[in-house]
Amino acid sequence: MKGAQKLTPMDASFLHLETRNTHMHIGGVAIFEPSPIGSGEALYEAIVRVIEPRLDVMPRYRQRVAFLPLSLDTPVWIDDPEFNISSHVLRAALPAPGGDRQLQHFISRVFSRQLDRRRPLWEMYVIEGLSEGRWALLFKTHHAMVDGISNLELVTALLDTDPQPRDIPDVRTTWQARGAPTPTDLLLSSLRERLTRPQRLLRSARQTASNPTRLAKALRDTASGLATVAQTIRAPRSVINGPTGTSRAYVFTRFPLDDFKLVKQVFGGTINDVVLAAVAGGVRHYLATHDVDPNDEKNALQALCPVSIRDESERAALGNRLALLLVKLPIDEANSEARLARVRATVDRLKARKQAVGADFLLNLAGFAPSTLHAMVARASLRQIGFNLVVTNVPGPQFPLYFCGARLVEAFPVAFLYEGQRLAIAIFSYMGWLNFGYLSDARGVPDVDLFARYVEKGFKELVRAAKRRRDFEQQVSTPRRPTSRSRPHRKAPARR
Amino acid sequence: MKGAQKLTPMDASFLHLETRNTHMHIGGVAIFEPSPIGSGEALYEAIVRVIEPRLDVMPRYRQRVAFLPLSLDTPVWIDDPEFNISSHVLRAALPAPGGDRQLQHFISRVFSRQLDRRRPLWEMYVIEGLSEGRWALLFKTHHAMVDGISNLELVTALLDTDPQPRDIPDVRTTWQARGAPTPTDLLLSSLRERLTRPQRLLRSARQTASNPTRLAKALRDTASGLATVAQTIRAPRSVINGPTGTSRAYVFTRFPLDDFKLVKQVFGGTINDVVLAAVAGGVRHYLATHDVDPNDEKNALQALCPVSIRDESERAALGNRLALLLVKLPIDEANSEARLARVRATVDRLKARKQAVGADFLLNLAGFAPSTLHAMVARASLRQIGFNLVVTNVPGPQFPLYFCGARLVEAFPVAFLYEGQRLAIAIFSYMGWLNFGYLSDARGVPDVDLFARYVEKGFKELVRAAKRRRDFEQQVSTPRRPTSRSRPHRKAPARR
Repeated sequence: MKGAQKLTPMDASFLHLETRNTHMHIGGVAIFEPSPIGSGEALYEAIVRVIEPRLDVMPRYRQRVAFLPLSLDTPVWIDDPEFNISSHVLRAALPAPGGDRQLQHFISRVFSRQLDRRRPLWEMYVIEGLSEGRWALLFKTHHAMVDGISNLELVTALLDTDPQPRDIPDVRTTWQARGAPTPTDLLLSSLRERLTRPQRLLRSARQTASNPTRLAKALRDTASGLATVAQTIRAPRSVINGPTGTSRAYVFTRFPLDDFKLVKQVFGGTINDVVLAAVAGGVRHYLATHDVDPNDEKNALQALCPVSIRDESERAALGNRLALLLVKLPIDEANSEARLARVRATVDRLKARKQAVGADFLLNLAGFAPSTLHAMVARASLRQIGFNLVVTNVPGPQFPLYFCGARLVEAFPVAFLYEGQRLAIAIFSYMGWLNFGYLSDARGVPDVDLFARYVEKGFKELVRAAKRRRDFEQQVSTPRRPTSRSRPHRKAPARR
Repeated sequence: MKGAQKLTPMDASFLHLETRNTHMHIGGVAIFEPSPIGSGEALYEAIVRVIEPRLDVMPRYRQRVAFLPLSLDTPVWIDDPEFNISSHVLRAALPAPGGDRQLQHFISRVFSRQLDRRRPLWEMYVIEGLSEGRWALLFKTHHAMVDGISNLELVTALLDTDPQPRDIPDVRTTWQARGAPTPTDLLLSSLRERLTRPQRLLRSARQTASNPTRLAKALRDTASGLATVAQTIRAPRSVINGPTGTSRAYVFTRFPLDDFKLVKQVFGGTINDVVLAAVAGGVRHYLATHDVDPNDEKNALQALCPVSIRDESERAALGNRLALLLVKLPIDEANSEARLARVRATVDRLKARKQAVGADFLLNLAGFAPSTLHAMVARASLRQIGFNLVVTNVPGPQFPLYFCGARLVEAFPVAFLYEGQRLAIAIFSYMGWLNFGYLSDARGVPDVDLFARYVEKGFKELVRAAKRRRDFEQQVSTPRRPTSRSRPHRKAPARR
């Protein structure tokens, strides 16, 4: 259809999953040293002049979603004729002293509000007022537009590998919106397409389209049926689950990547296994302070870990290619080493089975179900999967990046919450650091900073265990050599 | 009912009128000189310590709204056991240079997002980073909680008339939430109350409660019936009307009060008449630049002017007591003096008829209609009234006020938009200045700053005409005295 492109079923599901309380945007914050270009208005203008020409090759960023009448088919992307970059790249500042805490509060507030669906589904804040003249870029993009990895690729595409600021073009963009199809166009095109499909699907589409009451009833029956199934197999409730509210709380922490590598080298597994073991330890400590017995089997938790299933040839394409691993966290295990061993065993078993629960189910369903039905099924099936929290881990570059001549000091990702979830952890690595971003429902889990400290504690237990084991093995294998203490420990960026 | 108090029908209507796109919060910004208490965290802590004890006498500020099952009756206020002042008094900062423009952008963004209904319906931002060390308080409160005037009274109750900072109590508050009624309590209490009402109403309530399908049908019929009526008598469409979006644009301007007084003295009428004449001039100029012929009778505009009908004995009570004047703006009139004369004639006629269209109608209806029905009727009837923009004018103190020892330099009000509206003007006077706050739908009226400049132009035309008339009359009546030029003209606060 002229000027309109259907959302992939997976991308559409992120629109359908969004409610008043659960906003499906993701993002991250990038913190920079002072720029040679200057600060304030001058820096903002330079940033807009860098970004605007790039939008020519990223059409989504000037497109908005158009929904079909009666939600009879998947929504489409159409050019937004009223697109104005100054509504998407915004200026902001932190109150004094402009440290981590003030930045985290600002991010909490930005991620508490839904993106306006009548505009392209992204925002970027140029934040000044960070301590020591630093500044930050905060990205917020709808998950229907990008997944965690393609989001990251776009951000890194903006960045330079050289401290020299690139030439900033001084040309006005020549972009012109293509004419958008009318609602009737969209409806006709959708019906036309259905005619090419198997007869059974066509009949069902006709029935639902011609009889709104029957559609409503079908939806109610489907939803209640799925809800009943969901009740029987859902993950156990805990303080980190319950009705999700609108407001978010966000904190971040940083860990030296070398410490993760040490644990991995000593005990085996992947960085991601170590992350999950640290999180399991954090959950164990956190639940104990909330009068939940972590040793009781019925309080066990399931973590949903999105895994990219895109191959290298798809790296440039936008959109989502995700599989979901569902990992039971061994929080009933008091010993950190044993926690890691159990995480490894679970993840290895899931990988061997190529388990990609949820994603495939959704993709298959979404291909033909009327859109509203799909929304309800998507919600119900995610509940049915039964997970308690999301842990998502995206590797980043281990070399320095620059923007407008300013060095990127560090970057933290921001995840999102599904309905019924109150905690999600996103992880991003850069320049020898593993950066954790914790997003919580501000009312359900108001002490997300405490949770973050407990994950730190869970990880430090692992590091201590790994060091003890390494020292012990070195003594056993080479008893004459002194214990190695020479592992270089990276200096942390100043914590403020 | 224990721990629950019904909203007045008028207050409830502001909840019902709220949609995803039209948020019914109002507020204002107060700009202060530097405080002797300091800035940043220290000032914020002092402000919280001033505000928190005052909440004991303003119970609404710790209460949230509870809705009845099936919206069968008016919602009630209940104490929020999770109330936490740090979720309501927030810190923020402006980007450099911290002038009017940056402040206006910040306000636009804050007023673009809906208040969270699961919390007490207010927010206050302590904003730093204004030029010359100034800082600001931004208030945002749901219209269901306060009207423009009681909002103002609460704000001024916070302020001091003395530059000496008042003693800041160093005690923890002893407030405890009262137990909230359960949904069943609310429903039973509502039904019990209905039993004391006339039989006909009871029957209708029982019927709608027992038959959701019939209720839905009744709502559809009512809504479509009212919509049909509305179509026939609604005010003419113009660029400042149309579907309302979520995003707001906000600008403010300032006028010397003496200039308004001069116009009023020379031509007669009230300050409010002069305001409406200036706005009429602004609309005339603005429409002309948008290819609308202001001289064409069919492009005439209606302004809705809320007028307080509370008497002095009610000043301490919260809630809304409003009547609405509907003033046709003489935008087809090229001469500013004639515009004012026509505004005066219209307003005098309305006042003589004690016209209070809308408000009474809503109040009467709301007393017994099931709540959802009421919401639809409220929306339909406001459309039916047929107005194009809102102009609301609240007088403020003409003596200096202080907060935390800092002098209040100036204050600007923020209005709200009804469904279908794209422009609202709120006016507040303080210390010899009349301060205009213009709120627009950011997509429908993106050039609200242009509109504000045209109102300024419309007003300057009036001032010039008044000066000419005064000078002429002085020459005629006292031909031997030289023209008076001695009227003291107040020095404007620096414009940044």
